[in-house]
Amino acid sequence: MARRTGRRPGNPDTRQAILDAARAAFAERGFDGASIRAVAAAARVDPALVHHYFGSKDRLFLAAMHAPVDPAELLPSVLAGDRAGLGERLVRTFLGVWDSPAGTAGVALLRSAVSNEWTARLLREFLVTQVLRRVLDQLDADPAELPLRGSLVASQLIGLAMMRHVVRLEPVASAAPETLVAAVGPTVQRYLTGDLAEVFAG
Amino acid sequence: MARRTGRRPGNPDTRQAILDAARAAFAERGFDGASIRAVAAAARVDPALVHHYFGSKDRLFLAAMHAPVDPAELLPSVLAGDRAGLGERLVRTFLGVWDSPAGTAGVALLRSAVSNEWTARLLREFLVTQVLRRVLDQLDADPAELPLRGSLVASQLIGLAMMRHVVRLEPVASAAPETLVAAVGPTVQRYLTGDLAEVFAG
Repeated sequence: MARRTGRRPGNPDTRQAILDAARAAFAERGFDGASIRAVAAAARVDPALVHHYFGSKDRLFLAAMHAPVDPAELLPSVLAGDRAGLGERLVRTFLGVWDSPAGTAGVALLRSAVSNEWTARLLREFLVTQVLRRVLDQLDADPAELPLRGSLVASQLIGLAMMRHVVRLEPVASAAPETLVAAVGPTVQRYLTGDLAEVFAG
Repeated sequence: MARRTGRRPGNPDTRQAILDAARAAFAERGFDGASIRAVAAAARVDPALVHHYFGSKDRLFLAAMHAPVDPAELLPSVLAGDRAGLGERLVRTFLGVWDSPAGTAGVALLRSAVSNEWTARLLREFLVTQVLRRVLDQLDADPAELPLRGSLVASQLIGLAMMRHVVRLEPVASAAPETLVAAVGPTVQRYLTGDLAEVFAG
């Protein structure tokens, strides 16, 4: 969960004003283009208050987009271990989140993203800055290849969540997680570390 | 397009009543469980009139769910040719539809499916009966493996459409179709014809 313990109370109106300003800033300028300073200015508060409430720009972003999980907490165990098992570990962790109570929030986020351009942008920024960038940073691949590798991974994983939790197409909808790890892990592994010379030659 | 030429006029109220009844029947009972006879009874018309307006159960279904294309017209060219190129041809045809004006209707269908349980069921029936069944019928794979193979294909293709046309994650969003065919074709090929012994052993 993207939450701060112990600091939450404060003034709920102020906190909400910061979140509204952050949502607008991240959707309009992207994660990298939005600054805590600009969010604070839009919310008419001191930047120190934003830091006080949310701690970091990552945490502010996760709160603003109602992210059900913090990838920074989940990814270290995915990234630890042998490179050859990266795809399977990523699929296993992804399914674990979606099969947990956080999955309900994930479905809500997907629903909002397909009907609302702002949420779609926030989801895109979430995938790139909170998930893919952290995984791709660990790879030895040509940096020019990383964006496509990352978005291919996202296409397979989001499609898996769509079929399992939204469209509920059987047998993907109720398959044992390890069945899907064995099926989809090699796909994600190829997108991350496989030889895609034919793809990049095109 | 799922349309009939020359027969459309008729009584628009009657036609709409048939479509409404068909939509309910297909969502509640699935494609196989719904009959033209039952749809006609629910719409209080003679079954011959349903045949007259829509021709076949497949056509009635496509009209009821506002399908932007008729897979029966697109799939023969995908299924013709060598087995080893099936994945690439399926991805190429899929991208061709989504990159065409029909893609706009596809996005509308996805939007509706994630927010509306009925549309989700119709989309599921569409994928299974109009697309996957026709492709899987051509394979030599163990029949027990076909449903999972089909739903894995659907997970990758729908995820690709989500990233390219809804979330618009770059570079998948604006990549040349052939780049994506080279990247995703082998994934679909493995799901369709690859050795998934490890998956089915699980």
